[in-house]
Amino acid sequence: MTLLFPEDWIPQAVKTKLPDGYQIRPLDSNDYNRGFLQVLAVLTTVGEISERRFQEQYEYIKRARDTYYLIVVENDQGRIVGCGTLLVERKFIHTCGLVGHIEDIAIAKSEQGKKLGLRIIDALDGIAKEIGCYKNTLACAEHNQIFYEKCGYKRNSLEMGHYFQGPPSPIRNARI
Amino acid sequence: MTLLFPEDWIPQAVKTKLPDGYQIRPLDSNDYNRGFLQVLAVLTTVGEISERRFQEQYEYIKRARDTYYLIVVENDQGRIVGCGTLLVERKFIHTCGLVGHIEDIAIAKSEQGKKLGLRIIDALDGIAKEIGCYKNTLACAEHNQIFYEKCGYKRNSLEMGHYFQGPPSPIRNARI
Repeated sequence: MTLLFPEDWIPQAVKTKLPDGYQIRPLDSNDYNRGFLQVLAVLTTVGEISERRFQEQYEYIKRARDTYYLIVVENDQGRIVGCGTLLVERKFIHTCGLVGHIEDIAIAKSEQGKKLGLRIIDALDGIAKEIGCYKNTLACAEHNQIFYEKCGYKRNSLEMGHYFQGPPSPIRNARI
Repeated sequence: MTLLFPEDWIPQAVKTKLPDGYQIRPLDSNDYNRGFLQVLAVLTTVGEISERRFQEQYEYIKRARDTYYLIVVENDQGRIVGCGTLLVERKFIHTCGLVGHIEDIAIAKSEQGKKLGLRIIDALDGIAKEIGCYKNTLACAEHNQIFYEKCGYKRNSLEMGHYFQGPPSPIRNARI
């Protein structure tokens, strides 16, 4: 087992609010076999990813300099049931400031209603603050605006996309 | 002079459409003295950044693995008059797909109306396609939606932000 980053970067206050037997922690090099990719499939197409390919991508993002913070929620059966990504960008503006990009928040359908999405956002916000980001930003569907407002987010602007190989069939109505 | 990435990654078709004497190229380690930070100040607070701090940040993003693609437009006087960033994210979804995040597009006020914004977006889209991104994404104010539609972008969703130390006074009405 190799965690992507130190476990104690996740605020203790978030860990204690999880259902009994659940844990929230950094992505682990063995999470391929615990259902990590199946959780992501709630969001969009994941495609065929072999364990070797998963390991390569894991090693790549681990070696990238202080950039990727992927976390997962594991339930009391040892299965991954939620996940989220914080991508940290080094800017020149705001005195070489850091901005966190929240990406790919997913909760297994059978585990929704347990506030796991809120815990994941709170954890990623806590990590971003710890690292020194001046803000986190994310793109969300209109119907998720209220959820993110409860997490402390405010509506800023539009998110626009340019697809180079045709849209990869995202399931845009996925709910947190 | 050290360029952030190879100059030939910027499509030739974009270079030929610039005004006479202008060039578009990767950020250079000497651009501190050519007005790079002053162009960024069109967007928001830049703050006090020494040449040494600029160099450190430049070296950091250059060493980050295949992640940052900053480009600038230099005018016929050798001054930086436009800039833009492509931040490349490695995901697990879409078969370990790559997504480009377009950030911090700025054009000096005195150089607006020359389609430099369009050239920068076209260049960053070209680089993203070259790298293999399946899409580029960006956040923009409502009044810039039409501009980005001309660049091939479509409105997707909302962009929301969570400020950790109070909003850093962005000038949200900056136009391309």
